Amino acid sequence: MVKKLIYYTACQFHLGFNYNCMKNNIKPINFLKKFEKFSEHWSPKVISELNDYQFKLVKVKGDFIWHNHENTDEAFIVIEGKIFIEFEAKTEEINKGEMIVVPKGVAHRPYAKNEAKIMIIEPSGVVNTGNITDKLTAPTDDWI
Amino acid sequence: MVKKLIYYTACQFHLGFNYNCMKNNIKPINFLKKFEKFSEHWSPKVISELNDYQFKLVKVKGDFIWHNHENTDEAFIVIEGKIFIEFEAKTEEINKGEMIVVPKGVAHRPYAKNEAKIMIIEPSGVVNTGNITDKLTAPTDDWI
Repeated sequence: MVKKLIYYTACQFHLGFNYNCMKNNIKPINFLKKFEKFSEHWSPKVISELNDYQFKLVKVKGDFIWHNHENTDEAFIVIEGKIFIEFEAKTEEINKGEMIVVPKGVAHRPYAKNEAKIMIIEPSGVVNTGNITDKLTAPTDDWI
Repeated sequence: MVKKLIYYTACQFHLGFNYNCMKNNIKPINFLKKFEKFSEHWSPKVISELNDYQFKLVKVKGDFIWHNHENTDEAFIVIEGKIFIEFEAKTEEINKGEMIVVPKGVAHRPYAKNEAKIMIIEPSGVVNTGNITDKLTAPTDDWI
């Protein structure tokens, strides 16, 4: 009862708690303010949902692992800095103000020489390391 | 035959023509460079696809119309400038570096006092004026 009231209050006043109501709140989300809420690398934080898709912010630095997503394309938007994505035949550099879509099933390895801030858009439930389980495998559905 | 060759060449050298091959090209897309390619307001231009979703750039200025999308949520990301979205009970201001998701079925009216550059993410085939047909109704699947 008390919990319900706290949830309700949090929703009404947009207090920014990570409750389900946030998913249905119609309010602007500021990317840089959300990035202030965490510091880990390669650990996607969900900020919004669109049907059964999610918008996830990620701080990236150093090397990620080779992987692919068998059942879905994956969109990367660079908010700050620059990242690289290595494919089998080439490496692409993606800068602030740019996006790239990695088609489903395509092996790729993201990396960043310096810390970069990116947004990933993909279906809910997609695991960051795709077909691989690794120490870099992060929880899904981790809202901020 | 010649057409096929031109298509093939355009794809291989990323000449930026609006052919199907573009949809499958894995290369970065620069938002501001894409915005240089058109000037109309309220006329979404597709720049990329993610499964059966599309990323659409739109230049907006002045008033749009009240409408809703019965079957889908709709995400707005502001790339330059600021927009407003009027809802029945409130109006939200969305600035550069911010996003908002309008849930399906929710009536809304976007407007911008000065020209703003935005990106919309929604399923392929969604009509910009939703449940309304108007002089502002724009073609879908208009790639740049």
